[in-house]
Amino acid sequence: MNRIPEPLQKVVAAFSKLPGVGPKTALRYAYFLLSREPYEAEQMARAFLNLHAGMTRCRFCHLDSEKSPCEFCMAENRDDHQICVVAYSRDVHAIETSGSYKGRYHVVGGHLDALEGVTPEYLNIGSLLNRLREGNITEVILAFNPDITGEATSMYLARAVKQFPVRITKLARGLQTGTDLEYADPLTLGDALEGRREVK
Amino acid sequence: MNRIPEPLQKVVAAFSKLPGVGPKTALRYAYFLLSREPYEAEQMARAFLNLHAGMTRCRFCHLDSEKSPCEFCMAENRDDHQICVVAYSRDVHAIETSGSYKGRYHVVGGHLDALEGVTPEYLNIGSLLNRLREGNITEVILAFNPDITGEATSMYLARAVKQFPVRITKLARGLQTGTDLEYADPLTLGDALEGRREVK
Repeated sequence: MNRIPEPLQKVVAAFSKLPGVGPKTALRYAYFLLSREPYEAEQMARAFLNLHAGMTRCRFCHLDSEKSPCEFCMAENRDDHQICVVAYSRDVHAIETSGSYKGRYHVVGGHLDALEGVTPEYLNIGSLLNRLREGNITEVILAFNPDITGEATSMYLARAVKQFPVRITKLARGLQTGTDLEYADPLTLGDALEGRREVK
Repeated sequence: MNRIPEPLQKVVAAFSKLPGVGPKTALRYAYFLLSREPYEAEQMARAFLNLHAGMTRCRFCHLDSEKSPCEFCMAENRDDHQICVVAYSRDVHAIETSGSYKGRYHVVGGHLDALEGVTPEYLNIGSLLNRLREGNITEVILAFNPDITGEATSMYLARAVKQFPVRITKLARGLQTGTDLEYADPLTLGDALEGRREVK
């Protein structure tokens, strides 16, 4: 007799689609929503319904944005010589949060992943090469995850970009702020040693 | 320039209301939703919009249900002599999953919590006492969380129920299945020792 009522089950199914949300968490979310006033569920529903209609992709850098070109491509106070290449729009958000970068962006739209069938044709690489062809850019920063698919994408792009007279860099690897050296994994420690910097 | 586009921000705000969801997770969910086809967002929205309209509360046990009386109160094959008192509807679901209980339920709707202003008047206690007055019930099982507010609610209800000629029980405490005795906290070990059972 452990049937979840149909209207609740549909909300559970909806939440279960979200990344990292299993059936228990989905049920918790659904019961929470049920415990709130109907207008709150309506508010959420409205936000969902307006999401895709209100968003587009920047025709230059492919960033998910309200308008095309996006604010980063339009901004006059950003460095035209640097382009930071990322997998997803959310990565732009993360980098902006650091406040350490003032150049342009390019969102390729994913990681190369043979197992998932993501080959170079699926990524926004042609448009990146076109932007490099315009000749303004002097540095391409490859900002991908330090894992297998991220590295593969980074390597592929480095090769594709090599034909242009630009500096090709990638994000530094090493100890994360706040970690304990004692507990750092060997690969990270190796990266930290290899990338060691002069103390001035 | 770290502004999240408005339509995305509204979805982030919606997700942020869910229990245990912080701004980072909400942003992850929102970007995920944006990456899917619009019809999927619409499907979720529809589930949300239909939730409250499709659900009601059982007039006897206060369970969130599609109809009133609920299936547990209507079921003819469940024990009329036992009543399991829980804080929330989701607890009924958890207990049903165990498959160990075949009696009736009563959902009081929360835990007593003076700090949050939850006093006995806010809970469905009067209707519980009315059900006991009918005289059919011989055991009241208090199934509340083993924490401060759960214990307080349990104690309050035990006192309120004492006027009836019923057995009052609560869920056993002890080692959880799969735990390592070595890592059990002292309170749990104490409970496990105190509630020790004869090996037959």
